[in-house]
Amino acid sequence: MSSDATGIFINETHTSAAIWQYRVEKMILEGKTEFQTYQIANIPRFGKSLFLDYNIQTSIMDEHVFHECMSGPAMTLHPNPKKVVVCGGGEGATLREVLKHNTVESATMVDIDKELVDMVKVHMPEWHQGAFEDPRTTLIHTDARQWLKDHKGANFDVIISDLPNPHEDGPAQYLFTKEYFQICAEALADDGVFALQAGSANCNYPGCMVSCMATLKSMKETFEYVAGYYGIVTTFFQPWGFVLASKTHDPLALTEQEIAARFQNRGVVNRYYTPRYHQSVFTLPDYLLEAEQNEGRILTDSEPYAWTA
Amino acid sequence: MSSDATGIFINETHTSAAIWQYRVEKMILEGKTEFQTYQIANIPRFGKSLFLDYNIQTSIMDEHVFHECMSGPAMTLHPNPKKVVVCGGGEGATLREVLKHNTVESATMVDIDKELVDMVKVHMPEWHQGAFEDPRTTLIHTDARQWLKDHKGANFDVIISDLPNPHEDGPAQYLFTKEYFQICAEALADDGVFALQAGSANCNYPGCMVSCMATLKSMKETFEYVAGYYGIVTTFFQPWGFVLASKTHDPLALTEQEIAARFQNRGVVNRYYTPRYHQSVFTLPDYLLEAEQNEGRILTDSEPYAWTA
Amino acid sequence: MSSDATGIFINETHTSAAIWQYRVEKMILEGKTEFQTYQIANIPRFGKSLFLDYNIQTSIMDEHVFHECMSGPAMTLHPNPKKVVVCGGGEGATLREVLKHNTVESATMVDIDKELVDMVKVHMPEWHQGAFEDPRTTLIHTDARQWLKDHKGANFDVIISDLPNPHEDGPAQYLFTKEYFQICAEALADDGVFALQAGSANCNYPGCMVSCMATLKSMKETFEYVAGYYGIVTTFFQPWGFVLASKTHDPLALTEQEIAARFQNRGVVNRYYTPRYHQSVFTLPDYLLEAEQNEGRILTDSEPYAWTA
Amino acid sequence: MSSDATGIFINETHTSAAIWQYRVEKMILEGKTEFQTYQIANIPRFGKSLFLDYNIQTSIMDEHVFHECMSGPAMTLHPNPKKVVVCGGGEGATLREVLKHNTVESATMVDIDKELVDMVKVHMPEWHQGAFEDPRTTLIHTDARQWLKDHKGANFDVIISDLPNPHEDGPAQYLFTKEYFQICAEALADDGVFALQAGSANCNYPGCMVSCMATLKSMKETFEYVAGYYGIVTTFFQPWGFVLASKTHDPLALTEQEIAARFQNRGVVNRYYTPRYHQSVFTLPDYLLEAEQNEGRILTDSEPYAWTA
Repeated sequence: MSSDATGIFINETHTSAAIWQYRVEKMILEGKTEFQTYQIANIPRFGKSLFLDYNIQTSIMDEHVFHECMSGPAMTLHPNPKKVVVCGGGEGATLREVLKHNTVESATMVDIDKELVDMVKVHMPEWHQGAFEDPRTTLIHTDARQWLKDHKGANFDVIISDLPNPHEDGPAQYLFTKEYFQICAEALADDGVFALQAGSANCNYPGCMVSCMATLKSMKETFEYVAGYYGIVTTFFQPWGFVLASKTHDPLALTEQEIAARFQNRGVVNRYYTPRYHQSVFTLPDYLLEAEQNEGRILTDSEPYAWTA
Repeated sequence: MSSDATGIFINETHTSAAIWQYRVEKMILEGKTEFQTYQIANIPRFGKSLFLDYNIQTSIMDEHVFHECMSGPAMTLHPNPKKVVVCGGGEGATLREVLKHNTVESATMVDIDKELVDMVKVHMPEWHQGAFEDPRTTLIHTDARQWLKDHKGANFDVIISDLPNPHEDGPAQYLFTKEYFQICAEALADDGVFALQAGSANCNYPGCMVSCMATLKSMKETFEYVAGYYGIVTTFFQPWGFVLASKTHDPLALTEQEIAARFQNRGVVNRYYTPRYHQSVFTLPDYLLEAEQNEGRILTDSEPYAWTA
Repeated sequence: MSSDATGIFINETHTSAAIWQYRVEKMILEGKTEFQTYQIANIPRFGKSLFLDYNIQTSIMDEHVFHECMSGPAMTLHPNPKKVVVCGGGEGATLREVLKHNTVESATMVDIDKELVDMVKVHMPEWHQGAFEDPRTTLIHTDARQWLKDHKGANFDVIISDLPNPHEDGPAQYLFTKEYFQICAEALADDGVFALQAGSANCNYPGCMVSCMATLKSMKETFEYVAGYYGIVTTFFQPWGFVLASKTHDPLALTEQEIAARFQNRGVVNRYYTPRYHQSVFTLPDYLLEAEQNEGRILTDSEPYAWTA
Repeated sequence: MSSDATGIFINETHTSAAIWQYRVEKMILEGKTEFQTYQIANIPRFGKSLFLDYNIQTSIMDEHVFHECMSGPAMTLHPNPKKVVVCGGGEGATLREVLKHNTVESATMVDIDKELVDMVKVHMPEWHQGAFEDPRTTLIHTDARQWLKDHKGANFDVIISDLPNPHEDGPAQYLFTKEYFQICAEALADDGVFALQAGSANCNYPGCMVSCMATLKSMKETFEYVAGYYGIVTTFFQPWGFVLASKTHDPLALTEQEIAARFQNRGVVNRYYTPRYHQSVFTLPDYLLEAEQNEGRILTDSEPYAWTA
């Protein structure tokens, strides 16, 4: 019985409003790294799924939605992305999406959690699909912020920040601040593009996303174009937010035809972030625009975002 | 502590993949009608909320999303809606949205559950906001399908079908079939517009929505224009699907300017279904288009949709 | 379906080992006093039940087990109990059990939570059964410890301490200490009897019960006879512990015949604490004797018991 | 935080009254045999625990309570148990308790689930403690009822029936009937002793236990002495019931001194079923005596017990 209370569940706290009990058909693997706990489990209908610190991260049912949204807009917006950096991105699927673009000459993934990535290589091939073995890939296990600081002036074309949410008192808090965004900017080329995952895009707790938008928009000298966008991630039970920032390229000016041409030239085939759907992805519902007005604030190292349940 | 396991919860089964535990701050009212059980409860962040048969129906946080989507597109598409019917719509908020359009001369709400509507009148004024007292309103408690059949040729301008999901072996199964849609068509004027709520628009169980689309599209002689659309309902933890069908008006041809003009002329102010957002609401993600191909089937009285968890 | 995950639940945290979800058929009443939150709810099989701060307190199914254990042994042990005090005991059922003994001339119930007792009078008649209206009853709403201190030398025959568990940082912590027990002793007559509810008697968290035993046993001058005992409270999903302390009467010397005679003379009829069962109630399983050795410590105002989940 | 809703849980349905969520610290092993699903998990406070079909079976915290109660009374009652049969008893701990008695010359364990027992041998050494390797042990994987039928007249001294609960439509239903008990009787010696686990001994669902008592008591010719008894199993959140039946030995006539002597002679040391505690274990609370009157019925193959949540 699918509504049976009996069984194994992973319970995730979704704000104070609700607890979500994901039903586990089969616990495939469980463990703990220096940085986080993880489970790989089969969830009915969702299939193989990854949980980190008891938060669902991705399921085989719709991992493409998140990962195409994470990489696709920034990569596509850049007219010729050759040197790309992925910060975080443990499962290797963000990297995989970057490598889809045949313009790429080097893709460097900087993820602090070596144990997790080593596990992913073996147990989550459906996600990375060989991306770690791609000759263009360099995999580095260190702190992304420090690494980018050390690569000031490196002239990257695209930097993608696929990092954990800035939980209160967690280390990721300083990866969602003006200072971090400035470090990213200084590692980018003059026409570079930056994108980050920015948290929930529903009307229950949009605070992180809209504050990332407000922060990047406050850096006018650095990023002339800033746009929030979102993907409908069924696995997260909510739409998920991202922000794109660019020194010279305007994502809203990109036409369906231009995107289609770039996809074709670069050998990209997508299932969610498609040329037809680009405009919808970048058209935010009014509640997010309202939230930006009401709750968006500039995040700094001294006053970072504090994500609480 | 907001992640505390302790407290009162209403548990909703969301397919076999998950159980959602909504935390109850305060149980305001609980009861049972001939047709369903109900609770009105305060949920943290969501505020006052209604549950029917342990499924969340609406919360004060974003009830406008659902109800503007339910009424707005059909009402706006019709150039001059005077005679409107709402089937179901217990809380009175769909009716409220209909009455926002000052073109309306009569709005008839046909909801079988008198006990529920009587309760709503007293305990959910934030939803109906006086709509039941509007002189243009007629409230009828009977079976909607039969009532519409009895009103063949009544030339309604708009019919809105805000009815419960077609649960297996439940009576609502026959309110999501070709035969029912035909009855609606025959009660509409030649340029009438029909819209229904059609179930989840996520990629976990889009079967009902895409089958409603397929069924209405199969009725080419009756409805020349059929379009699925969706709203992001945070309270439902998923986007929600609707279908619009019209004999003569094409929703995709409606421009932002035209919608803005109609809103202005009719005194309509919206927070979610806005002129700017119309196009996004009607642009379905690729997974729904795929699902329509793969799972969409023609629903009939002999083979209706059977919604199961 | 009785194993259905769907529905309303009150979730109680039972230590870190488990969360118990009690299924609510009907929420009868909910509220908050100055001191605690409460719900009265119908639970399947258990029937009408009371929750305080989301901990089940009592159900109609077996409230007699707890309340006969709370009052019965102390009342029966005293050869002629006339003046009795109940500390706490909100539902009035402990008082009811005291009044069963027709030797009683005065029964004073001292419960700080007037709002709760006022609610109970109206909504829980199955518990008090008119005890509050008994002419022998005096009901006082004040702090029990202070009241007993003010009644030093009052020569009560029996004092029953039916108070909340000593939760960490909660006010009840000082109602489970040597100093409090001394105050009780000084309000008792020379042959007085004292009993308290002392927490879980299972092998998961017996610490409170065995520490109450150890503390009272350390007061040899005051209480010559100290004995732990327990009742099987199905509603609590565990056996529940009590401690009896007496200046001159030995509960273990009481024979089945003597108890039967006292019951008969006083008009007492019980369903759980029966003459036949007295010996079993006072025979503790070895794990409690072990726990007394290993975990029992003397509780004082400066180092009270700190109950944690 | 021990009351945190977040984490991994195994949910067990305890009748319609409650769902118990056991918190999993670590999932050690998970699998499925031909007959059942199993998990070995670390539970906070309980430690290593086994679940079968999502029902907790045993935890290292108090497995001795169940297993001493399962084997101890029958073994001790027999003055010289040499040939013993254990039906079921997967973990090997019932067998271990049997082998404690140095009078035993042969112990045959008949458990149908070879895959489970093979797993237990490797992963649950704390339970069997080498019992499977004891030279007196014979392990047979077949249907216990048929095997006993085939051993009519075998003159076993003790038969212990440690079998799954008789769930509705499950195969174990026919292991709790008069016909099965008769088969056991016919495999026993004239002074043989039989004991079975008989389900919950709380007042919520005592039906199975009291019906086993009633059934065995109806077999006066076969079993002159029948007595229900129970153990307080913290892991089960309830006291657990057993029934002992004997042709010639009366368990209630056994004195503390005699038990102590037998333990000494046979080298038995127990932690729960001790000489001191024997009498308490066999003294049932009045609610079980009442339930026997009200709900106890004779179980037969045509009308077996149907355990439902």
